[in-house]
Amino acid sequence: MTSGVLLDLSGVIYEGPRAIPGAPEAVSRLRKSGLPLRFVTNTTRSPKQAIIRRLAEFGVAVAESELFTPAQAALDWLREHGCRPHLLIHPDLRLDFEAEFSGSGWAVVVGDAADAFDYASLNRAFRELIHGASLLALAKNRKFEDSDGELSLDAGPFVAALEFASERQATVLGKPSADFYEAALASMLCPAEEAVMIGDDAEADIAGALNAGVSVALLVRTGKYRDGDERRFDPAPTAVVDDVSAAVDRILVGRE
Amino acid sequence: MTSGVLLDLSGVIYEGPRAIPGAPEAVSRLRKSGLPLRFVTNTTRSPKQAIIRRLAEFGVAVAESELFTPAQAALDWLREHGCRPHLLIHPDLRLDFEAEFSGSGWAVVVGDAADAFDYASLNRAFRELIHGASLLALAKNRKFEDSDGELSLDAGPFVAALEFASERQATVLGKPSADFYEAALASMLCPAEEAVMIGDDAEADIAGALNAGVSVALLVRTGKYRDGDERRFDPAPTAVVDDVSAAVDRILVGRE
Repeated sequence: MTSGVLLDLSGVIYEGPRAIPGAPEAVSRLRKSGLPLRFVTNTTRSPKQAIIRRLAEFGVAVAESELFTPAQAALDWLREHGCRPHLLIHPDLRLDFEAEFSGSGWAVVVGDAADAFDYASLNRAFRELIHGASLLALAKNRKFEDSDGELSLDAGPFVAALEFASERQATVLGKPSADFYEAALASMLCPAEEAVMIGDDAEADIAGALNAGVSVALLVRTGKYRDGDERRFDPAPTAVVDDVSAAVDRILVGRE
Repeated sequence: MTSGVLLDLSGVIYEGPRAIPGAPEAVSRLRKSGLPLRFVTNTTRSPKQAIIRRLAEFGVAVAESELFTPAQAALDWLREHGCRPHLLIHPDLRLDFEAEFSGSGWAVVVGDAADAFDYASLNRAFRELIHGASLLALAKNRKFEDSDGELSLDAGPFVAALEFASERQATVLGKPSADFYEAALASMLCPAEEAVMIGDDAEADIAGALNAGVSVALLVRTGKYRDGDERRFDPAPTAVVDDVSAAVDRILVGRE
């Protein structure tokens, strides 16, 4: 029995500036079925409100409470641990961190900073780490499909660089963190074993969700998907489908 | 019996723009003892000729054949494997790569590019790797003592970033590669078990040399050395000494 659906955004609902053909209609069909939905993204280049606006432009209405981003998880972590952030993030994402922080600790927060990843900014972050700051990774994705259709470096390699330099492990807040999946599932009162995840990243979306107890994880052949990805990570996807429309077909069998 | 001495440069002979007090005299004493010397550096910010000129300014005369750099090891590797280099290195080091290359393969060559490490250059290197280029690391040092006396990111973290992104392991050419140590030892016809290594990096200089079969490795408390480094890597140094002068005292006991 399926009682909740988790959907990745980039590579599943949209690709760069465009909606993936059929994706808005697929989300509508899920809405009509009455299944609760949560959108779980590792995108750390856009603040929450910009993601919601962008989805609305594609005809996909998403409430703030339905959208789970690593920035939100970082804010929660910082408050819980009494830490102030040293941000190594995309300039656009700073909006999500415009908050009051208190506490005596510091945490280096690394997102997909894109061109803001340069030697000077990475070195400043490294020096914070050797002076005792914690290391928080908004996400640790290796790569993403860039607007030119080629793969580009995501936040993960830069997190790996700081881990290697400081000889410490980052706390990863976004997918594939089980905490991240559990927070999204709990918010829709959906037990993991009754949830379906749809994503284009065989590692963070698929293996990550399955490791968090989600029972069905569907890998789409859009976005960053490349031939053979389904055999590269453990656990493997429940099934590989062409796109989110095909994934929704499968979920709604017997329900529509 | 000691029949050859390997010396690291940065942090042992000089620190930023200055010779370490007593270092030129210590090298002179080794020269007078008749022991053959080799200078093994992972510095990849300066071409070979600039390193030799800098040492000469400090009163340390070093022949080209006595200086082992990762750039030289990379040139040898590229020729041997019929590869052309895609360079991600410090602009000053390009001089060492002004050579004719032939062959159908490509290799991404990563050194301590310093400010030349930016998102665009790292992403170009990543794309070469996913299109099949090999990954050569001139060195994989985590950090070095910068001119302001603080630790800064060395080439290693950026190598780790590219390894993580491409899911491949780099071939590391400089210290702690056993091949690198063996080439230096072979050039002075010194069996590893009769060699002494002097360095400030407990990992690349000390554990690296000992793993390559060198029998005595002396860790100096200058350069990047920080309290407790001698307990952080395996194998541990044979001894920890104040500086290269103290190391030479120990080597020359009974010889002077």
